Amino acid sequence: MRMSRMYLPTLRQKPAESELPSHQLLLRAGMIRKLVSGVYSYLPLGYRVLRKIEKIVREEMDFAGGQEVLMSAIQPKELWEDSGRWEAFGPEMFRLKDRNEREFCLGPTHEEIFTELIRSELKSYKQLPLNLYQIQTKYRDERRPRFGLIRAREFLMKDAYSFDMDEAAMKISYKEMWRAYEKIFNRCNLNYRVVEGDAGAMGDSDSHEFMAMCDNGESTVVYCPSCDYSATDEKAICSYEIKNSAEGQTVKQKIFTPDIKTIEALKEFFDVDGSSFVKTLLFEVKGSVVAVCIPGDRELNVTKLMNLLKVPEHEIEMASPQIVEKVTGAEVGFAGPINLKQDVKLYVDARITKMTNFIVGANETNYHIKNVNYGTDFEGYIVDDLLVVQEGDLCPRCSDGINLAKGIEVGNIFQLATKYSEGLKASFLDENGREQFFWMGSYGIGVSRTLAAVVEQNYDEIGIKWPLAIAPYHVIITIINPSKEDQLQLAEGLYTDLKSKGIEVLLDDRKGSPGVKLTDADLIGIPIRIVVGKDAPKGEVELKYRHQDSRRVMPVEEAMEEVIDYVRCQLS
Amino acid sequence: MRMSRMYLPTLRQKPAESELPSHQLLLRAGMIRKLVSGVYSYLPLGYRVLRKIEKIVREEMDFAGGQEVLMSAIQPKELWEDSGRWEAFGPEMFRLKDRNEREFCLGPTHEEIFTELIRSELKSYKQLPLNLYQIQTKYRDERRPRFGLIRAREFLMKDAYSFDMDEAAMKISYKEMWRAYEKIFNRCNLNYRVVEGDAGAMGDSDSHEFMAMCDNGESTVVYCPSCDYSATDEKAICSYEIKNSAEGQTVKQKIFTPDIKTIEALKEFFDVDGSSFVKTLLFEVKGSVVAVCIPGDRELNVTKLMNLLKVPEHEIEMASPQIVEKVTGAEVGFAGPINLKQDVKLYVDARITKMTNFIVGANETNYHIKNVNYGTDFEGYIVDDLLVVQEGDLCPRCSDGINLAKGIEVGNIFQLATKYSEGLKASFLDENGREQFFWMGSYGIGVSRTLAAVVEQNYDEIGIKWPLAIAPYHVIITIINPSKEDQLQLAEGLYTDLKSKGIEVLLDDRKGSPGVKLTDADLIGIPIRIVVGKDAPKGEVELKYRHQDSRRVMPVEEAMEEVIDYVRCQLS
Repeated sequence: MRMSRMYLPTLRQKPAESELPSHQLLLRAGMIRKLVSGVYSYLPLGYRVLRKIEKIVREEMDFAGGQEVLMSAIQPKELWEDSGRWEAFGPEMFRLKDRNEREFCLGPTHEEIFTELIRSELKSYKQLPLNLYQIQTKYRDERRPRFGLIRAREFLMKDAYSFDMDEAAMKISYKEMWRAYEKIFNRCNLNYRVVEGDAGAMGDSDSHEFMAMCDNGESTVVYCPSCDYSATDEKAICSYEIKNSAEGQTVKQKIFTPDIKTIEALKEFFDVDGSSFVKTLLFEVKGSVVAVCIPGDRELNVTKLMNLLKVPEHEIEMASPQIVEKVTGAEVGFAGPINLKQDVKLYVDARITKMTNFIVGANETNYHIKNVNYGTDFEGYIVDDLLVVQEGDLCPRCSDGINLAKGIEVGNIFQLATKYSEGLKASFLDENGREQFFWMGSYGIGVSRTLAAVVEQNYDEIGIKWPLAIAPYHVIITIINPSKEDQLQLAEGLYTDLKSKGIEVLLDDRKGSPGVKLTDADLIGIPIRIVVGKDAPKGEVELKYRHQDSRRVMPVEEAMEEVIDYVRCQLS
Repeated sequence: MRMSRMYLPTLRQKPAESELPSHQLLLRAGMIRKLVSGVYSYLPLGYRVLRKIEKIVREEMDFAGGQEVLMSAIQPKELWEDSGRWEAFGPEMFRLKDRNEREFCLGPTHEEIFTELIRSELKSYKQLPLNLYQIQTKYRDERRPRFGLIRAREFLMKDAYSFDMDEAAMKISYKEMWRAYEKIFNRCNLNYRVVEGDAGAMGDSDSHEFMAMCDNGESTVVYCPSCDYSATDEKAICSYEIKNSAEGQTVKQKIFTPDIKTIEALKEFFDVDGSSFVKTLLFEVKGSVVAVCIPGDRELNVTKLMNLLKVPEHEIEMASPQIVEKVTGAEVGFAGPINLKQDVKLYVDARITKMTNFIVGANETNYHIKNVNYGTDFEGYIVDDLLVVQEGDLCPRCSDGINLAKGIEVGNIFQLATKYSEGLKASFLDENGREQFFWMGSYGIGVSRTLAAVVEQNYDEIGIKWPLAIAPYHVIITIINPSKEDQLQLAEGLYTDLKSKGIEVLLDDRKGSPGVKLTDADLIGIPIRIVVGKDAPKGEVELKYRHQDSRRVMPVEEAMEEVIDYVRCQLS
């Protein structure tokens, strides 16, 4: 492709709205453009990368026995009611009506639709296992679209669904997809970790997430350097040593704490650290009030609370000051577990049962109570773990210290078991002629997000450094001065020869400053650069790899040979 | 691919809802499934065909200098207001709101979005011409979705947009796309005609439609067998000899026509043919009443009326009986051009000015008037042509008799001129530094509709007959009895050998009746069938082409050689 003809609007300046290097560089390199918040267009160069990732995904899915299909984005409400997710998805689902007022959504995912597809036609165990997948546009009306392609509202996804006859077979399908994902992300040159995930909207199930590791990731990964434990922070089991568990219990005592409402202020007032307190958090959930007690120095893990209460995030709200006053009889800042109004359900993180003589709010304005003990002074529903993991915590498996790191979730795999087949009544006849629900799995890859994640891991201060496997072109030939016949001829010949060998070449034949052209080449990140300039009369060119600093001047034939070998070797 | 593992739910019976052979066969061959009215899923075999058509489209678009991009389906209302189409598109546009109540549509087409894409970044005539295209899902909430993929509400389209510096350059881009379309439809083996089209929602412009000719087509094509005139019936200029134009005018006379309201009843009553009448049709258009006079033996062309009034179809309604009574003073059935209420605008097809002594409604219940003449008895706005062309009409160019035929519109090309660039204020600087609006073209191909059109032209009573270029597989190997070792071995060897030569092979290794397998092979329409059966011990197989009746038994090596040659020759 000739750059003089290509629509490639590179930008010199960092675009104002870009938050991450990948977002900024994809905009600057003329690869994507924003239409509205969370909605992007792919320009020619960016679309080539997207299609290369698609191709890798397709090849590995086919190799793993997947069969490609294409389902609609428009999905009828009824199917989502059958699975119970029409309400559960909440405002994240784009909804619309047709001209007959029939209700639809734009699919945020396709479990229902794939189950519907097979439920009336896949009838025998002999047709199992089955793995169907598609590469298709998905829609999620994110509360806060951001980071360019990483959290978009319209995005490209590969989603696959497996149907099996029993749990053991489902686990085999799951493992096969796991392996396919490893191959896909390896081919994209991603540095990733596979971690235990929380199934979220997919329902109760075993799941794993593929996390592209990078400092700017939205997700937090918890991993143990000593054993193979790793999980998202939503899922990770919190384990740590409780400091004040050894003291003997004393008798509780009400303390006047005028206007002292926060843990920070309380620490100062009592001159103790956060672990001496128990926080009582109040939430409104579907019209009821729920109280949650956790150690004063820890954070509540909302995902764990969601799973406990079996409600989606948008149905859990912090209680309003009015509600707080109503159920505690006190202003905000003095809530505690003792003498809450009867209809408030109280959940207690299990660690609190091991703490002694802690301080809680008194449910009376300007008062706290000290020397409180679980069992003696109050009781609630004990919950194993409601806490966010933090630096310094212990591995729940081997008790060594855990590490925290940031990542971008590029893939996820779920064991759905029979949740959707039961909900949508999709069954088959087993070898004994008995009706059984399908055991399902679902498997997603954020194709457009993967593109951004690759950039997030492969850039420097001057631009993107595409891995060869998904680079928009393998080679860029920059002509320093295309009005000089010898440069033009040498470059055109090289362009034609390389193309004839299957190498993808971008020819920068634009007039204008060599500086601009070299800057663009670095910015758009083509892995191999050949500059044709002053040495053209000698038949020499300059060869440089984007990931290396060194430049070498050499005869054009030598450069060509090296490039062909390099590309073939990298792609084989 | 092994059929024993493929998700291929073929149907023995004709599905109840299928209206056209293509629709029926695609359902029966397990290629598509309906989710809801006008919304389809592509199963593995159908999706392979869709992707092959995509590939042909992509190759020819690239060859013609197009650059592929991908835009979003979600589009903000504001851009459509700038072009004036937010209202104009009417109920055919799917509309939705996001969580912040911002309004969007699901793109039925992308003129606005592509214009927006380039308007702030394409600034110089040096970057022109530019042709950007995408292959993307489109949404139209059709009033009456039908015929499977042919009139769907979610469908796959290739849309391209060209940007040029002036009208002459626009016409060159237009011609290039025309040529690319010819190559695309030729490669898909379609029998098609290129006809003048009506630009419809694209606005006033020259346009052509690519019509796949077939008896079940929704569109009517008018063409002249003597010259090269051809057009859609929406666009075709109506020309015919007027019978009663030579008579001398006589004086008008009111006639009692009790309860005689239709042209049919009037013909009997007056004992004359339809050409002796002038029909007066009444419409409500944006709150006003419009009357249209046309010859009694002709039909009104609503598209021509839409273009005349410059309103979209959904804003033209037949007047209600109440309105008819109000503006004519008579019951429905007696409307005429004389003495209509003043605020009714009267349009008169020009042919009426050449007719003499015709009969019209009297605007009085149970009365008509005969011997009426234009100019003498009434006047209105004369319009060149408001009529539908019919069999027996004359070519507007060479006056020979025209033919009518049916077709499916698979492609269209529009010269948009500066309609959208002016509406969205998209301009560039010309060689003299003057700001100019882009001259644009837009070019669509219904990718999924093309798939259906190919089937509509390639089937027989037992199934589909795919052209090799877009067949899901080139060859099907049917094993009559896979439990016989010699058959299985011969077939497996052939399967492996053909695949190694780049031939796409489906291996029917299913257990079960040979009859079912052979029926399926015919139904799904694979171009070449090799049956491995009783002659396997002799190393012989039966070779049959789907488009021929003859079957030949031959040594497997010979069959393989012939098939490889045939496929290579067909695809080259």
